[in-house]
Amino acid sequence: MTRGKAECEVAPVFQAYNRVLAEDIISDVDIPPVSVSHFDGYAVRAEDVFQASVNNPVLLKVVGGIYLGEEFSGEVNVGEAAYISTGANLPVGANAVVPVELARDKGDFIEVRRRVKPYENVIPAGADVKRGETIFKVGHVLRAQDVKFLVDVKKWRVKVFKKPVVAIVSVGSELTSRIEEADKRKFNSHGEMISILVGEAGGVPVNLGVAPDDVNAVKRLLKKGLEKADILVTVGSASVGEKDCVLEAVKQLGSSKVLVRGVKVQPGRVTSLTVAGGKPIVMLPGHVQSTLVGFYFILLPLMRRMAGHPSPFPFTALKARMSRKILVKEFASFVRVRFVNVTEAEGSFIAEPIMGDSSLTSVVVKANGFIIIPEGKEVIEKGEFVNVHLVNGLFPLT
Amino acid sequence: MTRGKAECEVAPVFQAYNRVLAEDIISDVDIPPVSVSHFDGYAVRAEDVFQASVNNPVLLKVVGGIYLGEEFSGEVNVGEAAYISTGANLPVGANAVVPVELARDKGDFIEVRRRVKPYENVIPAGADVKRGETIFKVGHVLRAQDVKFLVDVKKWRVKVFKKPVVAIVSVGSELTSRIEEADKRKFNSHGEMISILVGEAGGVPVNLGVAPDDVNAVKRLLKKGLEKADILVTVGSASVGEKDCVLEAVKQLGSSKVLVRGVKVQPGRVTSLTVAGGKPIVMLPGHVQSTLVGFYFILLPLMRRMAGHPSPFPFTALKARMSRKILVKEFASFVRVRFVNVTEAEGSFIAEPIMGDSSLTSVVVKANGFIIIPEGKEVIEKGEFVNVHLVNGLFPLT
Repeated sequence: MTRGKAECEVAPVFQAYNRVLAEDIISDVDIPPVSVSHFDGYAVRAEDVFQASVNNPVLLKVVGGIYLGEEFSGEVNVGEAAYISTGANLPVGANAVVPVELARDKGDFIEVRRRVKPYENVIPAGADVKRGETIFKVGHVLRAQDVKFLVDVKKWRVKVFKKPVVAIVSVGSELTSRIEEADKRKFNSHGEMISILVGEAGGVPVNLGVAPDDVNAVKRLLKKGLEKADILVTVGSASVGEKDCVLEAVKQLGSSKVLVRGVKVQPGRVTSLTVAGGKPIVMLPGHVQSTLVGFYFILLPLMRRMAGHPSPFPFTALKARMSRKILVKEFASFVRVRFVNVTEAEGSFIAEPIMGDSSLTSVVVKANGFIIIPEGKEVIEKGEFVNVHLVNGLFPLT
Repeated sequence: MTRGKAECEVAPVFQAYNRVLAEDIISDVDIPPVSVSHFDGYAVRAEDVFQASVNNPVLLKVVGGIYLGEEFSGEVNVGEAAYISTGANLPVGANAVVPVELARDKGDFIEVRRRVKPYENVIPAGADVKRGETIFKVGHVLRAQDVKFLVDVKKWRVKVFKKPVVAIVSVGSELTSRIEEADKRKFNSHGEMISILVGEAGGVPVNLGVAPDDVNAVKRLLKKGLEKADILVTVGSASVGEKDCVLEAVKQLGSSKVLVRGVKVQPGRVTSLTVAGGKPIVMLPGHVQSTLVGFYFILLPLMRRMAGHPSPFPFTALKARMSRKILVKEFASFVRVRFVNVTEAEGSFIAEPIMGDSSLTSVVVKANGFIIIPEGKEVIEKGEFVNVHLVNGLFPLT
């Protein structure tokens, strides 16, 4: 899959946090540019203190001080030392540093009672990064320390992938986007939820609100979405009931063929995917657990691909043991998702299944992760290891 | 520890994502308010189809249709059924739903060939949440589904903890905040990094820029910070060198006693904490790994406490095996932090230690987590299990 529109843009490094790099970053500089002291101490010639010990202290003449942010034009000759701050450039002649704690102040001299080796307590030029070295590859998601590193190598602007704009249309005559009407109708809470998840997945959500179960009304909102968004999402009215009109609406918008009509995952099995006007349209079911599973299996990887992420799904970090046996005989030829609450006990993780109908929000509120059960598996034993999936915004690291 | 200033504020629910609740949330309503159908199908009296089977199909008269968002005033009497949409209210008289796939359309009648039990395919009133039930407790961090649930129970405004404002002052005569000067001086990249981490930890960062190694200059910026921030952070110049002036500056600002002067953790051991003008001042060391460790052990838990988080540190989700033996004999009486890169191989996680001087940014750029080694431990064996710590912004879930 490739992105349809212009794929990338240039961002100032100070706004590049959490963006996905669209270029390899190669350093043009050495960091540090010259060798620097690792401690506050004295820049010396290692040869001068090679014989230094408690029984054989060596006296060196202090010829100056080298401070951060100040020029120092002197040098260190045989029998000499210069005070040096942490991070300051090593002066000409010196090749090691005696930390301040290991030098005794004797007026114009210092007494050194321990040898230092050449380059001891010194960070050599290029130790952090060398000119010509690749520091990040395309697809890398920039973290706090990465932004710092880009600043250090003076990359003030970087090429990043554009964030996909995702328009969200909730479908259902029972819904409203107006608080004043929330006594009689259900407020469109799914739109809020999906907007947050889209934002956390690296997209820009555009919540277009509610369309009633009417083909023309759905079409009108979807058209609005097609103008501004890279991906369209509908929530609800995706199944086979009398009034489900989303499929008819996308057909009239030019989707000649539904690419994915239902997925073999439960809940969420009526999730569908098509293309109209050159843009993907993801149709999510309305029962909240189905909505979330559809989001995870279809919308999330689609967005990550468009946003330049190298992997379709987030890293699954958490392994836990099931607190009790569960039967998963229904839809055994499907992949099944079950929500769990993981707690830590004596250094290991225990996953307690949270059961309940797919329409119940309380289940996903009580959960802090989910497990994916492969096709064919009908039982998970008590104590069995499971991979628990976490997702930003839904089941975050807290 | 209690927060000094006003602790909480009221936020519209649509802006409450990722905020920490400052109140318990108790539902005033039942969800669903009345029993609803779980499928598109026919609302029936379970008694009428109690004997239904393939050999004994039962005919029911269809007396109407109940659609979402439309009023229905009819009822279902003996021998009758009504079409019903998923999520629509069960009509008077009916107590179960026959899914549309299991009913044969016979004009004005349907033929049912399978029994349904009372309340089968029905979500009873209050199944998701009951009036009077506590759905969230103080300290809960609101996720996407939690915002949805708050909307569902019509909590349009919620009490949340204020985000602590954190002012950041970088100290060092070698530093600049001006790109034009970045040829001669180091750009203040630490300030950027800490700002991002503060934001991800639930705070509001205020990057006050750079003060040279001069007591009055440091004092001037810290005073500015005291006016607007809940917490002050200095980065750099925290150790015992000739020009380190942060301690003198905080003393002159009224800190009678440094509360924490160095911590038994390496790197980061010169991290300090004091109070001036009624506000905590965290002094972080300048070597990047030390800065990050000081952030994790002192600033992060302080911020989380002020922000209302129930736990001082993030959940440690990831257990891995060390890829090779490492010696950690230095500072063995301290807690030690080592950065690692975790990869997955054959379903288990392997942690490769990333070694390098504490001033090297490349180490934390190559890492995707860290381990904490307890006091006294001098060796980690190849294959030994370690807990890998992740932190939003630094080592996120990706």
